[in-house]
Amino acid sequence: MSRTGIPAVVLGATGTVGQRLVCLLVAHPWFELVAVAASEKKAGRRYADACRWMLPGEPPARAADRRVDRLDPDAIACDRPAVAFSALPADIARGVEPRFAEAGYAVCSNASAFRGEPDVPLVIPEVNPDHLVLLERQRAGRGWSGFIVTNPNCSTTGIVLAAKALDEAFDLRRVSVTTLQAVSGAGYPGVPSLDVLGNVIPWIPGEEEKIERETRRLLGRVEDRGRIEADVAVSAQVNRIPVVDGHSFCLSLGFDTSPSPDAAADALRRFRGDATVRGLPSAPDRPVRVTAATDRPMSIIVGRIRPCPVLDLRMVGLVHNTLRGAAGGALLNAELLVAEGWIG
Amino acid sequence: MSRTGIPAVVLGATGTVGQRLVCLLVAHPWFELVAVAASEKKAGRRYADACRWMLPGEPPARAADRRVDRLDPDAIACDRPAVAFSALPADIARGVEPRFAEAGYAVCSNASAFRGEPDVPLVIPEVNPDHLVLLERQRAGRGWSGFIVTNPNCSTTGIVLAAKALDEAFDLRRVSVTTLQAVSGAGYPGVPSLDVLGNVIPWIPGEEEKIERETRRLLGRVEDRGRIEADVAVSAQVNRIPVVDGHSFCLSLGFDTSPSPDAAADALRRFRGDATVRGLPSAPDRPVRVTAATDRPMSIIVGRIRPCPVLDLRMVGLVHNTLRGAAGGALLNAELLVAEGWIG
Amino acid sequence: MSRTGIPAVVLGATGTVGQRLVCLLVAHPWFELVAVAASEKKAGRRYADACRWMLPGEPPARAADRRVDRLDPDAIACDRPAVAFSALPADIARGVEPRFAEAGYAVCSNASAFRGEPDVPLVIPEVNPDHLVLLERQRAGRGWSGFIVTNPNCSTTGIVLAAKALDEAFDLRRVSVTTLQAVSGAGYPGVPSLDVLGNVIPWIPGEEEKIERETRRLLGRVEDRGRIEADVAVSAQVNRIPVVDGHSFCLSLGFDTSPSPDAAADALRRFRGDATVRGLPSAPDRPVRVTAATDRPMSIIVGRIRPCPVLDLRMVGLVHNTLRGAAGGALLNAELLVAEGWIG
Amino acid sequence: MSRTGIPAVVLGATGTVGQRLVCLLVAHPWFELVAVAASEKKAGRRYADACRWMLPGEPPARAADRRVDRLDPDAIACDRPAVAFSALPADIARGVEPRFAEAGYAVCSNASAFRGEPDVPLVIPEVNPDHLVLLERQRAGRGWSGFIVTNPNCSTTGIVLAAKALDEAFDLRRVSVTTLQAVSGAGYPGVPSLDVLGNVIPWIPGEEEKIERETRRLLGRVEDRGRIEADVAVSAQVNRIPVVDGHSFCLSLGFDTSPSPDAAADALRRFRGDATVRGLPSAPDRPVRVTAATDRPMSIIVGRIRPCPVLDLRMVGLVHNTLRGAAGGALLNAELLVAEGWIG
Repeated sequence: MSRTGIPAVVLGATGTVGQRLVCLLVAHPWFELVAVAASEKKAGRRYADACRWMLPGEPPARAADRRVDRLDPDAIACDRPAVAFSALPADIARGVEPRFAEAGYAVCSNASAFRGEPDVPLVIPEVNPDHLVLLERQRAGRGWSGFIVTNPNCSTTGIVLAAKALDEAFDLRRVSVTTLQAVSGAGYPGVPSLDVLGNVIPWIPGEEEKIERETRRLLGRVEDRGRIEADVAVSAQVNRIPVVDGHSFCLSLGFDTSPSPDAAADALRRFRGDATVRGLPSAPDRPVRVTAATDRPMSIIVGRIRPCPVLDLRMVGLVHNTLRGAAGGALLNAELLVAEGWIG
Repeated sequence: MSRTGIPAVVLGATGTVGQRLVCLLVAHPWFELVAVAASEKKAGRRYADACRWMLPGEPPARAADRRVDRLDPDAIACDRPAVAFSALPADIARGVEPRFAEAGYAVCSNASAFRGEPDVPLVIPEVNPDHLVLLERQRAGRGWSGFIVTNPNCSTTGIVLAAKALDEAFDLRRVSVTTLQAVSGAGYPGVPSLDVLGNVIPWIPGEEEKIERETRRLLGRVEDRGRIEADVAVSAQVNRIPVVDGHSFCLSLGFDTSPSPDAAADALRRFRGDATVRGLPSAPDRPVRVTAATDRPMSIIVGRIRPCPVLDLRMVGLVHNTLRGAAGGALLNAELLVAEGWIG
Repeated sequence: MSRTGIPAVVLGATGTVGQRLVCLLVAHPWFELVAVAASEKKAGRRYADACRWMLPGEPPARAADRRVDRLDPDAIACDRPAVAFSALPADIARGVEPRFAEAGYAVCSNASAFRGEPDVPLVIPEVNPDHLVLLERQRAGRGWSGFIVTNPNCSTTGIVLAAKALDEAFDLRRVSVTTLQAVSGAGYPGVPSLDVLGNVIPWIPGEEEKIERETRRLLGRVEDRGRIEADVAVSAQVNRIPVVDGHSFCLSLGFDTSPSPDAAADALRRFRGDATVRGLPSAPDRPVRVTAATDRPMSIIVGRIRPCPVLDLRMVGLVHNTLRGAAGGALLNAELLVAEGWIG
Repeated sequence: MSRTGIPAVVLGATGTVGQRLVCLLVAHPWFELVAVAASEKKAGRRYADACRWMLPGEPPARAADRRVDRLDPDAIACDRPAVAFSALPADIARGVEPRFAEAGYAVCSNASAFRGEPDVPLVIPEVNPDHLVLLERQRAGRGWSGFIVTNPNCSTTGIVLAAKALDEAFDLRRVSVTTLQAVSGAGYPGVPSLDVLGNVIPWIPGEEEKIERETRRLLGRVEDRGRIEADVAVSAQVNRIPVVDGHSFCLSLGFDTSPSPDAAADALRRFRGDATVRGLPSAPDRPVRVTAATDRPMSIIVGRIRPCPVLDLRMVGLVHNTLRGAAGGALLNAELLVAEGWIG
């Protein structure tokens, strides 16, 4: 079956994550951007005028002149099964996403609204593509022709890619992580400059709980009746710091069998995810790069792997929060759904 | 007549400027804080609870337990003529300040709402205390028993102190200034960190116009029928930069008689304002300090005085925006009004 | 015996830590600053001229006009047993401090040069004043009439104050800490702005090793033959971030008996150190403050105490790196030595 | 004559500007990188090992494995007339560049060492390509077979591109400029973070003088006996601010005939430089872009064009300091020399 020209809609297209999704989609080999949708007060305007453009350069020509549609499946002209990429705030997503799923859309959502639902897969393609099996329960239970798939937030994605690589090789049991998160992770207007300039804010509402819950879920196995089990303890401490882009994190890890730093570095370098994932257009060659410098923003970077006197190993990681984290995560999920036959 | 125990009310007491006014007033030799007032939704709460406290330390003990009053003269228990310090946003000030002036209060306002009215004095005590003569026209024209006096914004105060010192000595004709302004000048939440971290924002809405208009007015003389004339051209270019406190500015000045840098430095150092002003409790010994280091935040600092190839002289200045600029300016005006017999 | 007028010398007086020591000493009730010493190329100059002054205001009047002495006991005019506060870089300290100890000085050193020597006490007065017993071994073994006492670096001090309070109450066994350190901790010129502006540097040479080794030592007991034993595992991960002052740290702690967050908060609040220490002029009332806001820089601040899914408890701390950390640590040690009869 | 394969050498190849030159040259259609040279202590090492790489990604593969040569024409294997791009510090450049010019190299230098010499062209290709006529005097006077051509520093380039566009159209007479300069303009390690974090440094050694002198020279005409005359007064005030990349500047301009802001914007947009320059590979389509957003770093950006109450017009500009400013300036000069027949 052809994978070109799959129609794609962006919900919440005028925000920071939405803008990045639009940029990624106009250049994508499989998807074709057919609509940009946003809140009532932006609907009807030209896309380029409705945006406060936050990315380098200008809005892409192939999207700039589109009319912004309302967040309503009936308002969107699209005559084939389509992907709806959602970059909506959680409270809006809660109402909007089910209506698109009901109308037959494959909703690939970056919002946290449904991440915790037992029948909604939370997926990083390299980590747990098998969780898509939950979609059968979701459709059956909710009576939708479409569905919702979610991706985790940016910090979680970075942490879990490293954790999964090591879990496969050495059976991970305990994760203790401290994050140093950039202000762009909070969206716009986000963090007031008076709070963060020359300062550390050692708290981000709900973030520690999200990282802990989602890390455990992503590393878990789907059991009977869709329950997800993971035998790993996770502790997260988060900080907002005066940096624009890039979340870094200091990891300390405990294993069943304690590996040497060299063995861990090897496992991280070899980590690929399974065969389906490797062929996706947005999948990086290596999801984890073990190095100090890089120009591959879809990978995470890990370095300074060394023994830990309290758990077993320590390392430092960096994830580009807006590329791999949010827009990129939703896109990679959509590609996985295409590759696995759920879309297109 | 005794100058102790003059009742003082702070309007907009829970914002950044209001907090600083409260701190200055609880320790003031002349004024006695009798009420803190704020918007409807904060009224009735304990002051310390109604504030998101932005200054070092805790809210002062003598203010922390007060109930916040509504912005209404009738809501405030005060049986003597009192000073109302206004740290309100301009749009609120426009409605509230006249009601306090009508009720007999001496309103010392940091808001821009009435700064441009021809019968409302805009005053820096060291610069133009004689502009208080406008109060007679204001009361006569408006039928108020109280009145409104305003102080300029922070950057203007710094620029005008230096300009006035030199105007007295050498007849200033042209001022060209570029400012580098801290984010705390925008209040809270103010500037989003995503806009200003690692960036310069070469525009602050309305700021250039305010600096130009107010500088001309402050350097002017009150003529017949209250008109204010100033034979000086002023050009301001403003920038917001990623700095927390302190507005700096690069000045270029043209004179009738071009002074040497040394003569200018002398004039700046000798500048005091007239005798009445020198005795005010908050008046710094020297309004302008010509030096690189300082611990006197109520003064402005000027340095690098040198010839200018385009106009006559150049120099760099620094004003602590929240101390001298806003709260400090209103307080010094109130002290001047007491000293001149308008209050108390 | 009188505690006033004890002569004090500052070694390395022109650097950032040295400047702060000079400021603290000119206002101290027990010590009298009799000499400022620095490297050969600054010796002979007026103190205020030899400094690139980094603190607010001007060099204190009582130190500004002193001649800078060489780093040589023979070059310093002082006819009584004196305290030598050392703010020297480690490599210089290695040669200079023993000569002062040999000449009879009580060297209170902020340098790391001798911190690891088994017979040199590494002391935080509230934590391990009993380690001063090592001074007898030091003098006997080295044949000095004076001695060297050291204090830990800034981050260690903050971490250990919190750890000791909890160790006393609940028997601490494991410490995992991630630091976010300010640039002023690196001295001047220190960290290039190109490295740290908009960036995190997840490495500070030697810092993790120092924090781990010194934390274990400070929490340990002096055993037979001066050996120090501590039954605690410590893991530190460090980061330099674009903040001027204040090191913050995220702690995760494991105990023999896991306390509730409330019980831990109580233990932190009650922590005082022993009776001798409480009376020292620079000793804060409470070495650890459990709160969000503070104006007591000689204390550390701890907040967000909560259970940890991996170890037992988590919390966030903040230590003012240049006040409590370096200059303040050496000064408090000197006061302890006076109180215990080792000086004066 | 073919323009491909012209040999190019980078002097000072391991510094920030040198690294960027290397990157630009490995991808250049005319030049072929044949050698990288640096100071004695780096010579002999592999290029990638000798660099502390400051740019995104890794050193380019075509340069990484080269041996670093000494800064000596005899040490470099190159059998044809070659271009030597100099990114040397001024004091080293003073000794090294003449030796390369003597050996027949066309030295395109970003260093300030020879910028002030009357017979050394200081050139921005769009502004004053005719100044290359000085090369005849230079060769005749110094007896070199090669020569030295220089480009101005980064801020000057931005200011002069805007100024020249307007000078051509309206006869510019007075320039008053205040700059806000990024820390990357100071090289590495450059500005200590303690000086600039949360701060403005209103002074950069020698910078104001350089901007004033070089702006006048670039706008001038070559007269008899190589004298350069410009009837324009220039005042520059400079500031270092806590921003990584990008110098912005606030310009105020006086003309013989005062243009409207719209007429000025038109002149800026139409500005191209002469025909020779337009065809150079690195020449931007439009050297000055009048807009708020851009993705063309080799252009400067100008916005907020408005009347000035003191001079005639005001505007704000932005120049990417390391792209257009330093490496880019030298490269564009080399291309101009090729196009005009001085090289190849």
